[in-house]
Amino acid sequence: MKKIVIIGYGPAGATAALYLKRYGLEPLVIGKDLGALEGYNDVVENYYGHPQPIVGSKLIQAGVDQIKNFGIEVITDSVISLKQGETGFVISTTKQTFESETVLLATGKTRQTLNIPGFKKFRGKGISLCATCDGYFYRRKKLAIVGCGLYMQHELEYLNRVSQDVTVFTHGNELQCDVENPVITDKIIGFKGDEKISHLVTEKGEYPIDGVFIALGVPSSIDFASQLGVIVEGNNITVDEKYQTNIEGLFAAGDIIGGKLQIAKAVHDGMMVADTIYTYLKNK
Amino acid sequence: MKKIVIIGYGPAGATAALYLKRYGLEPLVIGKDLGALEGYNDVVENYYGHPQPIVGSKLIQAGVDQIKNFGIEVITDSVISLKQGETGFVISTTKQTFESETVLLATGKTRQTLNIPGFKKFRGKGISLCATCDGYFYRRKKLAIVGCGLYMQHELEYLNRVSQDVTVFTHGNELQCDVENPVITDKIIGFKGDEKISHLVTEKGEYPIDGVFIALGVPSSIDFASQLGVIVEGNNITVDEKYQTNIEGLFAAGDIIGGKLQIAKAVHDGMMVADTIYTYLKNK
Repeated sequence: MKKIVIIGYGPAGATAALYLKRYGLEPLVIGKDLGALEGYNDVVENYYGHPQPIVGSKLIQAGVDQIKNFGIEVITDSVISLKQGETGFVISTTKQTFESETVLLATGKTRQTLNIPGFKKFRGKGISLCATCDGYFYRRKKLAIVGCGLYMQHELEYLNRVSQDVTVFTHGNELQCDVENPVITDKIIGFKGDEKISHLVTEKGEYPIDGVFIALGVPSSIDFASQLGVIVEGNNITVDEKYQTNIEGLFAAGDIIGGKLQIAKAVHDGMMVADTIYTYLKNK
Repeated sequence: MKKIVIIGYGPAGATAALYLKRYGLEPLVIGKDLGALEGYNDVVENYYGHPQPIVGSKLIQAGVDQIKNFGIEVITDSVISLKQGETGFVISTTKQTFESETVLLATGKTRQTLNIPGFKKFRGKGISLCATCDGYFYRRKKLAIVGCGLYMQHELEYLNRVSQDVTVFTHGNELQCDVENPVITDKIIGFKGDEKISHLVTEKGEYPIDGVFIALGVPSSIDFASQLGVIVEGNNITVDEKYQTNIEGLFAAGDIIGGKLQIAKAVHDGMMVADTIYTYLKNK
């Protein structure tokens, strides 16, 4: 029986592991194959401590190297089920099964993509999945944001800071929030351009555009957590002030609990949850 | 008149600058000569994203390079006064004077040192200023903690996690908190050893020791803030949930507002305060 298994080795999981190891515990960290991190090729400029911009996947690799160098046990595998056992949790990966008194969910969120011609081509060349991350590079440009709900509204708020020309495209969905920007509800059927994106194409017309931000709902890898009966609001796992879910001994941190989807926030979560997990195990 | 001047370019100040620049503002950052960072030679292992341990002063240099590379104006000088002007704040360095609508205090805390023979020699070789940072390296060792108040009590709590042999030395002061560890109130007159520390010497005896942690009160560089009438509790500037002090337009973040004295926390503060400063300026 392990004391603590951490699922996910991004910023939140790795930081929690560093602090827990320092507290004298021996965390086991399980993370997905880094080769699968194709979606993390965005450049990170706003995480403190790197004079030059760093590609997301390289930062994650650096974090994994960091915890390995610190003597923390790391397993690269996919968790396929998480169940409550008699005295703790049973974590099954594709190859092994572990038992642990506590579990930290730090899997991050998988960002949604669009299966529309041109999406892959212009991803990173005019199409972005994060307004807070990339909006700055499109200031005073002609922008589109694709989405219809609260997540879109939140990203739009930031885009409105950097440009006065932002159009909302709901991609065939009904608008589920209030916005003051122009709204087009037609379905998107393509993105056009040469090196960079120049037009967004809907069923009914073409729109000249400098940048497109996708904010279609941020589906998360919380399926097995939901199966356990964890309370989920929107796409976020609900935790208390100790980062504990409604299930005793099951903690969550990082993007998966919502708030700012920023590395600085995930790292802070990781540090804080290490403290509460340590205290939980001590008082048990 | 500038919109925002940030005093201090450690983790909190630099991160706030990155985010404010992204929000379309042009922060001016004023920080001390990096040559003066002698006290930052401790190795940082628990800040996410660095596979190898990094020396504190190098991390700060990396952060300064990062904000300069991002096009942020950085001035290396010491702030000697901060006053309220008719429409904002007047910031004077040794060479220049600036006016700004808002100010962010992110100067960190100057860690106290001891003017005792052997202190400098064994600093980093058995003498540490941060239990949370270095305690792990002294697990199951014979430890001393020097201090008498709440800060010592807080650091002691962590040391008790890693060792069952921690003695409190109040260095001639009266103990101002409850501890269960052995307490020695005699004045410390020296530290002895060869390569590493081996003994702590008081007026009345010698004590074999593997590590000494100094926690004598963390005096902070908040003198000019106090002069402005900023509310200070203990050694921390008091801020509200928006990181604003009791003086409108004057914000503070990082070690100087208390909480965990960790880089991850300071970086998180910097990200959060950038948001509230942006909102403050927009609504003004």
